[in-house]
Amino acid sequence: MGKIPSDIEIAQRAKMKDIREIAENVGILEDELELYGKYKAKVSLDIFKRLKDKKDGKLILVTAITPTPAGEGKSTTSVGLGQALNKIGKNAIIALREPSLGPVFGVKGGAAGGGYAQVVPMEDINLHFTGDMHAITAANNLLSAAIDNHIHQGNSLRIDARQITWKRVIDMNDRALRDVVIGLGGKANGFVRQDGFMITVASEIMAVLCLSSDLMDLKERIGRIIIGYNMDGQPVTAKDLKVDGAMTLLLKDAIKPNLVQTLENTPALIHGGPFANIAHGCNSIIATKLGLKLADYLVTEAGFGADLGAEKFLDIKCRFGNLKPSAVVIVATIRALKMHGGVKKTDLSIENLEALDKGFANLSKQVENIRKFNLPVLVAVNKFSADTDAEINLLINKCKEFGVEVALNEVWEKGGEGGIEMAQKLVEIVDKEESNYKPLYETEKSIPEKIEKIVKEIYGGDGVEFSPKALKEIKRLEELNLDKMPICMAKTQYSLSDNPQLLGAPKGFKITVNEVRVSAGAGFIVCQTGDIMTMPGLPKVPAAENIDIDENGVVTGLF
Amino acid sequence: MGKIPSDIEIAQRAKMKDIREIAENVGILEDELELYGKYKAKVSLDIFKRLKDKKDGKLILVTAITPTPAGEGKSTTSVGLGQALNKIGKNAIIALREPSLGPVFGVKGGAAGGGYAQVVPMEDINLHFTGDMHAITAANNLLSAAIDNHIHQGNSLRIDARQITWKRVIDMNDRALRDVVIGLGGKANGFVRQDGFMITVASEIMAVLCLSSDLMDLKERIGRIIIGYNMDGQPVTAKDLKVDGAMTLLLKDAIKPNLVQTLENTPALIHGGPFANIAHGCNSIIATKLGLKLADYLVTEAGFGADLGAEKFLDIKCRFGNLKPSAVVIVATIRALKMHGGVKKTDLSIENLEALDKGFANLSKQVENIRKFNLPVLVAVNKFSADTDAEINLLINKCKEFGVEVALNEVWEKGGEGGIEMAQKLVEIVDKEESNYKPLYETEKSIPEKIEKIVKEIYGGDGVEFSPKALKEIKRLEELNLDKMPICMAKTQYSLSDNPQLLGAPKGFKITVNEVRVSAGAGFIVCQTGDIMTMPGLPKVPAAENIDIDENGVVTGLF
Repeated sequence: MGKIPSDIEIAQRAKMKDIREIAENVGILEDELELYGKYKAKVSLDIFKRLKDKKDGKLILVTAITPTPAGEGKSTTSVGLGQALNKIGKNAIIALREPSLGPVFGVKGGAAGGGYAQVVPMEDINLHFTGDMHAITAANNLLSAAIDNHIHQGNSLRIDARQITWKRVIDMNDRALRDVVIGLGGKANGFVRQDGFMITVASEIMAVLCLSSDLMDLKERIGRIIIGYNMDGQPVTAKDLKVDGAMTLLLKDAIKPNLVQTLENTPALIHGGPFANIAHGCNSIIATKLGLKLADYLVTEAGFGADLGAEKFLDIKCRFGNLKPSAVVIVATIRALKMHGGVKKTDLSIENLEALDKGFANLSKQVENIRKFNLPVLVAVNKFSADTDAEINLLINKCKEFGVEVALNEVWEKGGEGGIEMAQKLVEIVDKEESNYKPLYETEKSIPEKIEKIVKEIYGGDGVEFSPKALKEIKRLEELNLDKMPICMAKTQYSLSDNPQLLGAPKGFKITVNEVRVSAGAGFIVCQTGDIMTMPGLPKVPAAENIDIDENGVVTGLF
Repeated sequence: MGKIPSDIEIAQRAKMKDIREIAENVGILEDELELYGKYKAKVSLDIFKRLKDKKDGKLILVTAITPTPAGEGKSTTSVGLGQALNKIGKNAIIALREPSLGPVFGVKGGAAGGGYAQVVPMEDINLHFTGDMHAITAANNLLSAAIDNHIHQGNSLRIDARQITWKRVIDMNDRALRDVVIGLGGKANGFVRQDGFMITVASEIMAVLCLSSDLMDLKERIGRIIIGYNMDGQPVTAKDLKVDGAMTLLLKDAIKPNLVQTLENTPALIHGGPFANIAHGCNSIIATKLGLKLADYLVTEAGFGADLGAEKFLDIKCRFGNLKPSAVVIVATIRALKMHGGVKKTDLSIENLEALDKGFANLSKQVENIRKFNLPVLVAVNKFSADTDAEINLLINKCKEFGVEVALNEVWEKGGEGGIEMAQKLVEIVDKEESNYKPLYETEKSIPEKIEKIVKEIYGGDGVEFSPKALKEIKRLEELNLDKMPICMAKTQYSLSDNPQLLGAPKGFKITVNEVRVSAGAGFIVCQTGDIMTMPGLPKVPAAENIDIDENGVVTGLF
């Protein structure tokens, strides 16, 4: 393996095609394209009318084993798989999440994909892109301003300031804003109350945008958002505050999918990026549907490991979007499986067949889980240079014993060329195996029943415990008839359990639900286990200190 | 006069040309254009290299008498004048400020121009436009996050939390954020301190962007921004916090001027919109210079009345940008002059020659002021239907007696056609009268001397009084050698004095300077007289409640 340049160096050397050419190649008309410079464009939703009778392509979900500090390379594999499918003559499009701006200035990293499997223009995608995040910030904060203004102007809705659940957002890692007091300074500045800021991607607006099927569905969902409760304990909505129309207007462009390309000019739709804990962690339904209309294969991914990301993709996104996946790719690395088998991060370069054998339990559990949705699975092993032949052979044999297809991939080092085997196996599986997707649970069940099903069948736990606070909220949601929605689990991504220390495939544990709350606009019930951070902070030396731009516009220090 | 439809109806019916055609007509190459949809584009700064030897066009400033609730129509006149110049065969471009998003949801109004003299696409310009405001918000708040993070991580710069002058910003009318306490919730959330949010356009970053000559000048100015003082009373800058590079990166697209068009397809550069009180209230130097390179006539405007807007345009913007205006247009209405003459708003439709005669004092004082900069003046009377022939004749005769050129304009009702007389007179003046622009004062003078010169020569006051706080800050700035910069007066726009009740051309008053502070990045010293609101609130019934968008994307309730 030769010396591979850094991600940003590779991205800066990319031979990008004019985005109009990329669009034309997949059958987007010039009138349906709204350019943002030469290499980014939004696609008008009018395209759905024109293509309404066209048959959908195959939907491929890329997910992963339980993540470890060793890394899995889910986005890289998604991008590389799309590139590889095109290499073998298939018409493929990739659909990914939009990165958040704030973290870019915190810890170096981010980006979409890596090595020779990246989407570009990488700098723009990681900065303002086409302004979707900013539009969501504005819509969220218009609702916040309307809440405090309503109270200030007489509070005819009798909003209980102690029960406002709607927070302000900002697209910045800013710990000092987690917990604030607002409205200080006397009568002219409104009533004093406690509030807090989340990072923009944690806004319910982001989840709403990603689950909406069109502009009017977006407006209705926004109208249903519950901002808190009144003095009688009844929910107060964005529609009650009459700002649902203005909020929707702010999102009129954000709702349109963004078209970019990979390093190999494969089209990529990058649209929406909700949190994978308090939200469902997938790109937008609209972008996914657009990709399905345009391509034979639409490759998309879900946040975190399969127990969280794929479960929510399948139980929330596919349900709302009426999507029928054809296959699921589970990304694994030998390094990460060894960690699941008990190896420390510092010892990952040493061959350890025993640990790999043991850590395989995590992968097999995730495969088993996907099959509960009646879906065929391909394991994609993201190859690292330290992987030994013995380790590779062991993993392949374990997969064969377990009865799951497996392919090695080297897309990080070789781009699409390094994913040809993976692409070919995927096509075989999709052609051969029948997919009969069904969700895991029925939304009509009670909240505890739905949670229990996820915990027992997906996490492998023995049961669920609820805090008194959670039980109280479940009761309230039942009384308000707001309990018949899918569940959005907010759990650590580092374990199948709710304890990040338990790697592999733990058994004999229970999950504790501390907090339950409804995202009525998004249409799911968030069940929180453990503390969920919705506003990151900056580290001791923020990445921002090393980021720079010179007189020629050349950017350094970004990844 | 027939029934004129509403501004938004006129704007929605506009026959816009593809922005590539508008660009081509003024000699912008395709490669220098970055499209944002079909009707908006950014212009690459590379164009300055190509055009560096091209002779500049004539710079025309549009300003106004002291504003009253009767309205003057400065933006409308600017747009109409540009349209009219094109009608008489001149190559003209208009350069305006970008509107702020927040106020759009507050009180109905805003927009750029009115009637048949508007810039379009009006909805986009008033919403996210090309994302410049959002970029400024992000850059401002990155600096804020860096400040609190620095203190949290050990405060090696010894920042005095009691002396942090840098505030967070948000592009929303949100009074509850004026005065807040941040960093609550314990050790993990940083140190508790008092803070506040301003609306984005009040950020020093906005002033910096508008006064920068290129990307590297922008970075240097950002580096010089003073965020507060350390425990020894020494200034702490953005460069000390090492985020000047990252902040500049966030502004790499925002620094590029935005090209749109008027209802009559006259090119318009809309770029930058700093506050007209705590900042200088003009569009960017870069857009102005670009317009001068591309057109024979570049028509631009300054905020508020001529005593504030034109003074700062001439003493701050022209000084930094090395700009030499050719003429100044002062917009007046008979209605507003009658208010200056003592008529109540409800009686403005009644002919009142006496009041008009008396109110003329405001106009003549503003004309006199502009002449102190050695510049020729044209008075543009924005005609209203209630103006009587006797009133019009009186005003024209008064102007002639005073020795200033005057033209009626009806651009609101008739577009460019209604401004032909104004355009012709302007061209005559520019061709005939020599312009020998010089600033009012030398920056090398002391802060009190510079302020006194503005107060005596421009406002017509007897002198200046300083609060003890202001005197203390002047002393500090002198000690820090930060006093040799232009002055940015923050004064009520409703009077030549600092008392908004004193209309006409008051005499025998003194100006009280309450507060002095340096905007070291922008490069001026802000002198505050009276309270300046940097964060508006929403009214009892916000405009947002009537704003809506339907399934065809048609917007209602916006203006």
